[in-house]
Amino acid sequence: MNKKTPWTQTVDLDPPSLENNTGDVDRLAAALKKKLGADAIDIGLPVLRALPRRLREWGYKIKCVLVRDRGRWLVAGIKAADDPSPTAGIAIDLGTTMISMRLVEIETVEIEKVEIGKKEIKKKEIGKKKAIAEISFENPQRAVGPDILTRIHFAAKNENLKKINGMLVDGLNKKIQELCESAGIQTDGVFMLTVAGNTAMTQLFMGLNPRWSIREPYIPVVNRPGIVSAAELGIRVNESARCLIFPNVGSYFGGDLIAGILFSGLHKKEETCLLVDIGTNAEVVLGNRNWLMACAGAAGPALEGGVTQMGMAAAPGVIDRVVINADDDEIAIHTIGDLPPLGICGSGLIDLVAGLFLTRRIDIQGKFEPEKCGPRLKEADGIKRFVLVFPKDSETGFELFITQADIDSLIRSKAAMHTILETIAAAVGILFSDIETFFIAGSFGIFIHPRSAISIGMMPDLPVEKYKTMGNSSLGGAVMALESCDVFDEIDAIKERITYMELNVNQDFMNRFSASRFLPHTDAARFPSVKR
Amino acid sequence: MNKKTPWTQTVDLDPPSLENNTGDVDRLAAALKKKLGADAIDIGLPVLRALPRRLREWGYKIKCVLVRDRGRWLVAGIKAADDPSPTAGIAIDLGTTMISMRLVEIETVEIEKVEIGKKEIKKKEIGKKKAIAEISFENPQRAVGPDILTRIHFAAKNENLKKINGMLVDGLNKKIQELCESAGIQTDGVFMLTVAGNTAMTQLFMGLNPRWSIREPYIPVVNRPGIVSAAELGIRVNESARCLIFPNVGSYFGGDLIAGILFSGLHKKEETCLLVDIGTNAEVVLGNRNWLMACAGAAGPALEGGVTQMGMAAAPGVIDRVVINADDDEIAIHTIGDLPPLGICGSGLIDLVAGLFLTRRIDIQGKFEPEKCGPRLKEADGIKRFVLVFPKDSETGFELFITQADIDSLIRSKAAMHTILETIAAAVGILFSDIETFFIAGSFGIFIHPRSAISIGMMPDLPVEKYKTMGNSSLGGAVMALESCDVFDEIDAIKERITYMELNVNQDFMNRFSASRFLPHTDAARFPSVKR
Repeated sequence: MNKKTPWTQTVDLDPPSLENNTGDVDRLAAALKKKLGADAIDIGLPVLRALPRRLREWGYKIKCVLVRDRGRWLVAGIKAADDPSPTAGIAIDLGTTMISMRLVEIETVEIEKVEIGKKEIKKKEIGKKKAIAEISFENPQRAVGPDILTRIHFAAKNENLKKINGMLVDGLNKKIQELCESAGIQTDGVFMLTVAGNTAMTQLFMGLNPRWSIREPYIPVVNRPGIVSAAELGIRVNESARCLIFPNVGSYFGGDLIAGILFSGLHKKEETCLLVDIGTNAEVVLGNRNWLMACAGAAGPALEGGVTQMGMAAAPGVIDRVVINADDDEIAIHTIGDLPPLGICGSGLIDLVAGLFLTRRIDIQGKFEPEKCGPRLKEADGIKRFVLVFPKDSETGFELFITQADIDSLIRSKAAMHTILETIAAAVGILFSDIETFFIAGSFGIFIHPRSAISIGMMPDLPVEKYKTMGNSSLGGAVMALESCDVFDEIDAIKERITYMELNVNQDFMNRFSASRFLPHTDAARFPSVKR
Repeated sequence: MNKKTPWTQTVDLDPPSLENNTGDVDRLAAALKKKLGADAIDIGLPVLRALPRRLREWGYKIKCVLVRDRGRWLVAGIKAADDPSPTAGIAIDLGTTMISMRLVEIETVEIEKVEIGKKEIKKKEIGKKKAIAEISFENPQRAVGPDILTRIHFAAKNENLKKINGMLVDGLNKKIQELCESAGIQTDGVFMLTVAGNTAMTQLFMGLNPRWSIREPYIPVVNRPGIVSAAELGIRVNESARCLIFPNVGSYFGGDLIAGILFSGLHKKEETCLLVDIGTNAEVVLGNRNWLMACAGAAGPALEGGVTQMGMAAAPGVIDRVVINADDDEIAIHTIGDLPPLGICGSGLIDLVAGLFLTRRIDIQGKFEPEKCGPRLKEADGIKRFVLVFPKDSETGFELFITQADIDSLIRSKAAMHTILETIAAAVGILFSDIETFFIAGSFGIFIHPRSAISIGMMPDLPVEKYKTMGNSSLGGAVMALESCDVFDEIDAIKERITYMELNVNQDFMNRFSASRFLPHTDAARFPSVKR
């Protein structure tokens, strides 16, 4: 797995002569085969059309961008050997809610490992081994529906499938254009795309009907889409560009999670580690370099922006951190970009509920304790709410609050999450304390504070050092896939090694779930560090 | 080479279940891999998009059209296992002047070997092992120029290349539609195309610029185009259809000739045989199952329709056979379709000149003998002409004739042809008498009568039984490539085995050419059977 074949190969062809009159394309293919020790070189029509003129302009010295899919090498573009313009790739995390893209210079072997998850476009000096720019934006399919189910139902009709696929492709093209402009490169300079998304989003991206992936027995159209022509997918970058689409292990364990495993390095660890991706679904992978066990289950929408009344996806102005003192009415909040608060995202919500619980403002069932809450607790139409930000301090001019219903919903989510973790650990026969590293990923996971997650009993009570928050690991994995064309082998190996465990909602599961519906847990002895 | 893998494979997939939840495409690919013992199955986006709905409609029993390119299998379409509609392929001979296409039912292994070259659309009963229909039409690129050089020069500019490629593709689509209608099938039922053309035409078909193939060192864009998506080439048949494009051995030895070799079976013969393809170029292949030697040289345009004043491509109403008696002023003619005569094609011209020579109406230099010609010999503006058809008998109402210049031109062509045959035989060190079979192909060759060709010294004086006229061997080879998906291996093997001999126009060549510019030859002893 340590082989790193560069994305570009420069070959110096013997110029043709009467004695050596092989065709241009065959000449190039033969040289590449020899250089790479390859059996087959796939050169598409756009390269065939451009090659003869270019070869002569460039004096038969040519740089090819190549991607390998198992034993086959596919030419993803051609350049003059001395062309100084950057050879770029774009990694795409195709989230249901948000889409993130990173433009990377792929020509040199090493890619700087930059922290994932910054929300604004970053301009960086164009140079070697650099991430050039990044962009995040709302999935344009949200116009059809915020949740994936609505979109899948919408896409059932063929014309609607085309429409919703077009929304996404058009949106991607627009943002790719912006991304390239912000980095000062031409879209034509983009030769590789790597796309990681959940199974449904991946199918909608490819124009495949995902309707059967949500009905028993939950069959996706394709598990391993492989490498597809970007042009065929409607993506406007270099006309010969290729698109590596992350494989999935099923309808509920998508390419985004395979990308997450790749990014975490879990599959190369000697000791057993656990990766949890937190979203509407809780997706969990337990394993090491010898085995990988995965499962996924609905965690409920509590952590998804827009579900709780004040909930939002992480964005400038959104509260991502909350600290509550026991004896003080002051509540410290932090917003992304230090702007006046607009709403609250998943990590802020977990902090808030953890703080309310640790300061006894809510009880172990999550019910408000009026005498502890003081004047921040209000009630209207029989619904209690705890005010986090008063109107004068908010960007909107309205108060920001959390209701009893929001807390109940979060507790159900955290209980589901914890139950899933317990179930997979029990299935494998491992104790939480035996887990070396506990990776937390997900667009909501970017900002989750392990201490708060432990306090509410969402995550097991392990030393905080064992937790590693990874931010958007799906994007991280997609960026890693741009490191060299050998990474696809690693991705395939991960996919092949995963044993997917179906979560049976049996009596054991329900017993665990019920016990987890307290803060931090019915059995407080499991959370010795949680004191209030 | 005797393996015959059918074009379609029917697989009965295990329906998915919770225990067996592989994706639809991966499920199909695995079943096909197992059935075919294949390493890789390539399933394109159109099949991915159609598959899930179809699999469920068809109860997981599916028939796939598959074509193999070396070790890779490409899905060219899917059908219900019990779909009774014909699975068709179209063989295309992409001639510079005329294009011929034959629609064939490919699902069953054997294809009836039907005579090639009928000019009208034939309706045949749709059934097993049947050629369904055939069509021939003028290459629409003739609007740019009748000869290939004019078109290549025109295509030098990129927008012109697109234009001339579009002319051809649009024309093909229109005629494919007609062909399908005449056979009573949907264009959607066409899954395979096989295309044989000379190197320049093949490049123009693929939208590749052929400009470098006519300049030293005469390099084609590609020798082995392989199998390309029909949709990508702009051809409107089934959206998943694939197109096998015959390879070439260089700019002057194209896919049409490789198809011709395939059709003749020369490459499988124990004894040495010779194949000559007569057109503007004389292309010759000498060899057997162990070796193949090829060369090509300009034969001059004498046999091409439209060059002599009355010359025409073979079509209804065109004279394809002429018989002249020595002592009779009556000349017997035959026209295609037995219609009133319009003009004369290559075979008629050779018959005519042979007849004039054998009846001493022209001398050994091809000059008219006035006393033998009688009243049919006329003269205007110093140009002598021999009247073949009087105005009252012609369709046009004008006389049909041959001029002294036409005869001179034909003699140059036949001399070039004979010289090329002598040169290749000498290079290999073989006598004409050692050649077992002498295959004559070419769109002009369809009707050539070996006896006439011998009489003028175009072909060596061998027993007539040794000659085998094959008609349009390029179309014949393209049809054979529709026999089974294993034929591509045979085509590759032919291409690999050919040694192309550059014809050096040296003193030897010129001496041979000069000696051949008499009827039948300076050395009449070489043509003992030619008596007058």
